[in-house]
Amino acid sequence: MKNVAILGATGSIGTQTLDVIKNDRKNFKLLAATANNNHAKIIDIIKDFNPKIVVLMDDISAKKVKKYCIENNKDVEVLTGFKGLSTAVTLKEVDIVVTSVVGMVGLIPTINAIRAGKNIALANKETLVVAGDIVINESIKYGSKILPVDSEHGAIFQCINGNNKSDISKILLTASGGPFRGKNKQELREIAPNDALKHPKWHMGNKISIDSSTLMNKGLEVIEAHWLFNIPYEDIDVVIHPQSIIHSMVEYCDGTVISQMATTDMRLPIQYALNYPNRGKRIIDKLDFYKLEKLTFEKPDMETFGCLRLAYEVGKKGGNLPTILNASNEIAVELFLQNKIKFLQIQEIIEDSLDQFEYFKEVDIDMILNTDIRVRNYINRKYNI
Amino acid sequence: MKNVAILGATGSIGTQTLDVIKNDRKNFKLLAATANNNHAKIIDIIKDFNPKIVVLMDDISAKKVKKYCIENNKDVEVLTGFKGLSTAVTLKEVDIVVTSVVGMVGLIPTINAIRAGKNIALANKETLVVAGDIVINESIKYGSKILPVDSEHGAIFQCINGNNKSDISKILLTASGGPFRGKNKQELREIAPNDALKHPKWHMGNKISIDSSTLMNKGLEVIEAHWLFNIPYEDIDVVIHPQSIIHSMVEYCDGTVISQMATTDMRLPIQYALNYPNRGKRIIDKLDFYKLEKLTFEKPDMETFGCLRLAYEVGKKGGNLPTILNASNEIAVELFLQNKIKFLQIQEIIEDSLDQFEYFKEVDIDMILNTDIRVRNYINRKYNI
Repeated sequence: MKNVAILGATGSIGTQTLDVIKNDRKNFKLLAATANNNHAKIIDIIKDFNPKIVVLMDDISAKKVKKYCIENNKDVEVLTGFKGLSTAVTLKEVDIVVTSVVGMVGLIPTINAIRAGKNIALANKETLVVAGDIVINESIKYGSKILPVDSEHGAIFQCINGNNKSDISKILLTASGGPFRGKNKQELREIAPNDALKHPKWHMGNKISIDSSTLMNKGLEVIEAHWLFNIPYEDIDVVIHPQSIIHSMVEYCDGTVISQMATTDMRLPIQYALNYPNRGKRIIDKLDFYKLEKLTFEKPDMETFGCLRLAYEVGKKGGNLPTILNASNEIAVELFLQNKIKFLQIQEIIEDSLDQFEYFKEVDIDMILNTDIRVRNYINRKYNI
Repeated sequence: MKNVAILGATGSIGTQTLDVIKNDRKNFKLLAATANNNHAKIIDIIKDFNPKIVVLMDDISAKKVKKYCIENNKDVEVLTGFKGLSTAVTLKEVDIVVTSVVGMVGLIPTINAIRAGKNIALANKETLVVAGDIVINESIKYGSKILPVDSEHGAIFQCINGNNKSDISKILLTASGGPFRGKNKQELREIAPNDALKHPKWHMGNKISIDSSTLMNKGLEVIEAHWLFNIPYEDIDVVIHPQSIIHSMVEYCDGTVISQMATTDMRLPIQYALNYPNRGKRIIDKLDFYKLEKLTFEKPDMETFGCLRLAYEVGKKGGNLPTILNASNEIAVELFLQNKIKFLQIQEIIEDSLDQFEYFKEVDIDMILNTDIRVRNYINRKYNI
């Protein structure tokens, strides 16, 4: 029996994690669940899973949940804010923390959980993007396992299992190509948020759907893969694979390629991370190779989808650049979703931000947090008008 | 440094094994090489590898090699016959025996090598087909590792590495489909040996090329996989994959499929078996996913290619039936190559033989050898006219 805490329990990955737990109550118990302000969903979670602690970032939402607990005689501790998050993820009985919040906000609670020696089912890729070096070093120091929840990184993790790491010659990170695969810059000029949200293969939250349409999501995954598997950027190739059946591959020194495949259902990588080193009972659809039409592969177009190229460049240089990339992308995506900027401006705003701030090679958590805020302020002042 | 003995050093797999050794003389030394009667090739091997022992089944060929050694001052022991084979594979200094002879003749020397505690790089699938139960039990008893050299079984072996065997739900054995994929019985009626020898993806010896064209090769591999990985026949599916990039796959209880891919070059599975648990330096071409056109998959047509269906049936029943299947197939393929029977008669002769002999569930090595001879005699009497 593993006790689970979910950071961001009401979002897309959080909800699917709950579904995985629901399907295997013998092996998993939800101990803590956190949310921003979705009190209705947190109340549903209390009804269904009876956790020990829930956390809401928003005070008013927290009060509503407290009221529900008193009226319904529920013995659940209701906490608020970052302090609450920290309590939830460092709780003595917690075995594994699923970090499924989106964006930079996941950084501090994840580091707190690592320092408490908890294993991390990491869905919050921004944590590794902005502070990969620090996070990996802390996880080694505190004996915390980082288990990737991204379908790609979960795939790579499985393709490496049982092999010598020194035999790896390349990581082949697959990408569906998003809704605009094959389009040129001209065709992307008048893209509306709703077009960009229509992902051909995965149903995901808004932020990650836009990131998939710009290929920034793949760029962030390249940086994530670099840190998770300690592989140089030169040995990480992105392969466009529109059918999204192969979730990534690893090439070895002898020319062998090992791949992991499955239907496109995020519950599988979540379930794998929760069950590791075992596997759970199947809750996703099976692949049927007798009915699979074909698997195809292409080279990504980094000219049109410049965000992917930027991520490689920024990843290689490191320091504060990934924080600038990530912060500017987060704000630019928000502005695009609010119809305040055009689709192609996302990349322009990131490039503008990377030009604007001085490059530092050595960074610590304070500098990362500080840079993040300064970049957000800069973009909001200039573009959010 | 591993000392290698090759059973059948002058055939297709044997020659490719020599090439693997030649590419990595720091890690491998050829200690013994055996052949049927190809004295010229054995003399080349002596020149190039300076083995301690060579064996020729044929006395006259052995004399020629002895003469060469005396005239050229080569300190190589030249032996003959089954006794020679046995000496070669049980030599104290030998670490691994590559069993690359074709057909039933590999059985006794392989068992001798296992009983001497040698690891086996097994390319002689007939050994497992006729005596899988005995061979596997002996390998466990004598601490001998059986490392598959077939590209498919090498792939499965790698896809299982690092996983719990109890989590396997299915083996997906891929097959190119051979030169007659998509054809119906009517179209196969007048096939000539030369048509059947033209394999679309692999360059192999004659026997295995014909077996690939009837899908009997895949049938034998199904039986081989059953024994190597201890998987029930119901959980072994054959998947036609004409591009032969994926060399097989393993499906797990959670719906995950792990696959192994590489260019079609037998030196890779040979190299993997020799280097296991490590990997050697690449001697094959790399896969280039940016240039791969597509991967496709189909259900095999077991109606037209009845040999595959027969292998499943015979495998499930076990006992002496796989020996009957294998012996009748070996002779039928020979007769077809000699233009003495038609292509479709291969299957008919196997079915006739399976009808002709009484079924025994429990078998030992003597019974297997005896059955083998009786089946061969029966077919030769009836069809070799």
